[in-house]
Amino acid sequence: MKLNAADESFAALLRTRLPEGVVRDIEPRYLDEPRGRYAGKAGVLAAPRTVEEVSTLVRCADEACVPVVPYGGGTGLVVGQVKPDGPAPLVVSLERMTAIRGIYPDENVLVAEAGAILADVQAAASGANRLFPLSLAAEGSCRIGGNLAVNAGGVNVLRYGNTRDLCLGLEAVLPNGDIWHGLSRLRKDNTGYDLRNLLIGSEGTLGIITAAALKLSPVPVGVGTAMMVVPSADAALALLSMARDQVGEGVSTFELIHGQGLAFLSEVLPMVRQPFDHRPEWSILIELGLAEGLDPTAALERLFEAGLERDLVSDGVIAQSEAQRADLWNVRENIPEANRLVGSIASHDISVPISLIPAFVAEGQRRIAELGGLRINCFGHLGDGNLHFNVYPPQGENRADFSGVKAQVTRVVHDLVQEMDGSISAEHGIGRLKVAELERYGDPVKLAAMRAIKTALDPRGIMNPGAVLAVAG
Amino acid sequence: MKLNAADESFAALLRTRLPEGVVRDIEPRYLDEPRGRYAGKAGVLAAPRTVEEVSTLVRCADEACVPVVPYGGGTGLVVGQVKPDGPAPLVVSLERMTAIRGIYPDENVLVAEAGAILADVQAAASGANRLFPLSLAAEGSCRIGGNLAVNAGGVNVLRYGNTRDLCLGLEAVLPNGDIWHGLSRLRKDNTGYDLRNLLIGSEGTLGIITAAALKLSPVPVGVGTAMMVVPSADAALALLSMARDQVGEGVSTFELIHGQGLAFLSEVLPMVRQPFDHRPEWSILIELGLAEGLDPTAALERLFEAGLERDLVSDGVIAQSEAQRADLWNVRENIPEANRLVGSIASHDISVPISLIPAFVAEGQRRIAELGGLRINCFGHLGDGNLHFNVYPPQGENRADFSGVKAQVTRVVHDLVQEMDGSISAEHGIGRLKVAELERYGDPVKLAAMRAIKTALDPRGIMNPGAVLAVAG
Repeated sequence: MKLNAADESFAALLRTRLPEGVVRDIEPRYLDEPRGRYAGKAGVLAAPRTVEEVSTLVRCADEACVPVVPYGGGTGLVVGQVKPDGPAPLVVSLERMTAIRGIYPDENVLVAEAGAILADVQAAASGANRLFPLSLAAEGSCRIGGNLAVNAGGVNVLRYGNTRDLCLGLEAVLPNGDIWHGLSRLRKDNTGYDLRNLLIGSEGTLGIITAAALKLSPVPVGVGTAMMVVPSADAALALLSMARDQVGEGVSTFELIHGQGLAFLSEVLPMVRQPFDHRPEWSILIELGLAEGLDPTAALERLFEAGLERDLVSDGVIAQSEAQRADLWNVRENIPEANRLVGSIASHDISVPISLIPAFVAEGQRRIAELGGLRINCFGHLGDGNLHFNVYPPQGENRADFSGVKAQVTRVVHDLVQEMDGSISAEHGIGRLKVAELERYGDPVKLAAMRAIKTALDPRGIMNPGAVLAVAG
Repeated sequence: MKLNAADESFAALLRTRLPEGVVRDIEPRYLDEPRGRYAGKAGVLAAPRTVEEVSTLVRCADEACVPVVPYGGGTGLVVGQVKPDGPAPLVVSLERMTAIRGIYPDENVLVAEAGAILADVQAAASGANRLFPLSLAAEGSCRIGGNLAVNAGGVNVLRYGNTRDLCLGLEAVLPNGDIWHGLSRLRKDNTGYDLRNLLIGSEGTLGIITAAALKLSPVPVGVGTAMMVVPSADAALALLSMARDQVGEGVSTFELIHGQGLAFLSEVLPMVRQPFDHRPEWSILIELGLAEGLDPTAALERLFEAGLERDLVSDGVIAQSEAQRADLWNVRENIPEANRLVGSIASHDISVPISLIPAFVAEGQRRIAELGGLRINCFGHLGDGNLHFNVYPPQGENRADFSGVKAQVTRVVHDLVQEMDGSISAEHGIGRLKVAELERYGDPVKLAAMRAIKTALDPRGIMNPGAVLAVAG
């Protein structure tokens, strides 16, 4: 269906239906995205305070056939939050719906509005002596509704799952403006289709999440963190297996770091303290969170000893203080920023079955080498089979000169992912950036089912059009 | 759309399209259900061996507008597996698709066909030194495809989640006969809508699951089991909180048992050894599964001591051998069978927010008492907020004489559930048994979305018609 731009007359209509302050002029910051490659069309901005106001906004848009773009923290990496083409949208920002509606420590549940900043959700949980384990680089500015919309991953997925695994219930506005009151605190509820998981990860194309009941966990009593040098990605995987044999679910984080990332840090963020004098080709960051009665430092030492015996590690640093722990995390957490400062030709957020990771890394390096002396920074969530496989120009050269090879690089990487039954978007989503890639690699039966569901729930196609699925016609 | 019965001419058509042995005469056992209250219409039975054969069957049914009932182990408790009304169906039994297609211990993944018996999946995992944690009374005969179709719960949900939380990927045949190859072993995959979770729990109304990639866990090194006498459901909840503070995720099972269940056991299954000489009004079964280095017996003793100090427990038995452990589990696992032998007026599979469990139990008892001297056996998965709240005639009376009060009993229980924002089906599903209840209590916006999705994916309404959603017209 043909959509209409959110223009001044639409804004005027909204102003008659909504309290003062909800409908606003759109500022440039709502039209940017973190990679700076796309600019959103400037339509109308609305900042509702209640789910009822969100409902009114969506209902008006549905009636007027105006596209709606839900807006969280604006930190998404796949251009789901700005609409660069077609009619200018109504941008619905959740920034004024930030309440923590309730905390139920005995139930390990917290209910937050969609606009709550992830770090604030973590802090609220922490204040009740509970852990909200979702943790990722943008946690200081991303909003929980956006995390849910893209089913964000992060550094604790190994132990606690993806965002969808941390959600018990949702309140949401569907594309026709109806409010779904699904804010359940239940652990078990088998009454019909799983609308919650359908909305989670649908990137705003099936509705707007306005609040969520989130699962909390006990705070691990003893936390231990280490970086260890490993001879290969293969060894890293074997070390992870060993760690899980030793401490079971106690392994919270297991991140792979390539020397290229450390080199980038030295180059563009020299203030970040690195743990090793030399620059290891491969290292890992491991964090254990153990129950009462277990000593995480001793467990890490035991892992290191056992790893040494089997040639799975060659060097290591176990944090002896909170400051040292922060230093180790700083290395990992600053790699994305270093990447950004260096500037990639193409970046990829891929996953493969965990046991294929070493083969993926080796074969990916081999195929990219065929394209010339490009540099690869391959790092990420080894324990989840999820790597960021980013490709950079040779040292000293400018990425602008490599724009011609960008498509080819991505083709090489994604073809390999496909060969290994992997995913071309492990944790970032599809947004608008990867729609063509999804069309190319996605299972056609699944895509057809997705289109049927989209049409069923959003027959006019107003919700975040162009994201996830190509707009027809 | 009007459906046609699976008659002899349809069977003849199927025989021309499928290898010998797939299409069969239907035996009476496919038309029964465990509660013995409904009899399925006798149509045609098919027992395919491959997903391609399932696809052919569904395509033929779609073309002929013949209803399809997927059939697993036949153990479901909500009449999803037999179709008592309307045109006789094609029953597609997965009993010949029982292969374990692969085990990947390093990935903690197992791929099983839908017809694999749950106990066989558990055993295959165990053979690879891994745990497949789904565990429920019917595990010796239920099939994993059925477990997925209803999102089964069981005794380990507290720690490991519901069946949906144990599934990474699916292979399934959609209502048009298309095969979705979604058998992903990935931990992270954000490429579009969550079709997996949509199919899980849809009770065969959106397609037939033919295989699944299942998540395995490390086998806990030290397992400890105990029954403890608690003064109230409230105390049981406080004890659970204490247990989780002490051992974190190590609490695998926390089941509430009412004295009425123990009385039923004494009455109809006297060979089941009970741990206490007296018959406590409330007791709990707890199981810990701990990592290396922790002593589960010591942890249970510590919990008992701490509980004693705060008047949360008054007596207890900690299993000192595998035989004693089996005895304690026998008590819990035989309660459903004792219930069946006694014969309930009405049984309910409800959940409420965990902290409301004590209030639910007290208020439920109070309201049922107003209906006369009915007996209640209230037991189940306290840690999940999921109780089976079953109501029986007074001692010595016959349930047949109470059929007039059955609807009233259920109304009282489900009204209370609704008041507490609970669920009228926590782990058994809706099937055909609870369709009217779902219509009554379900969120209308969710129901409308469900109907839209059903129509989008199954426009002729052939897949398990009458289950979950009422058949229109």
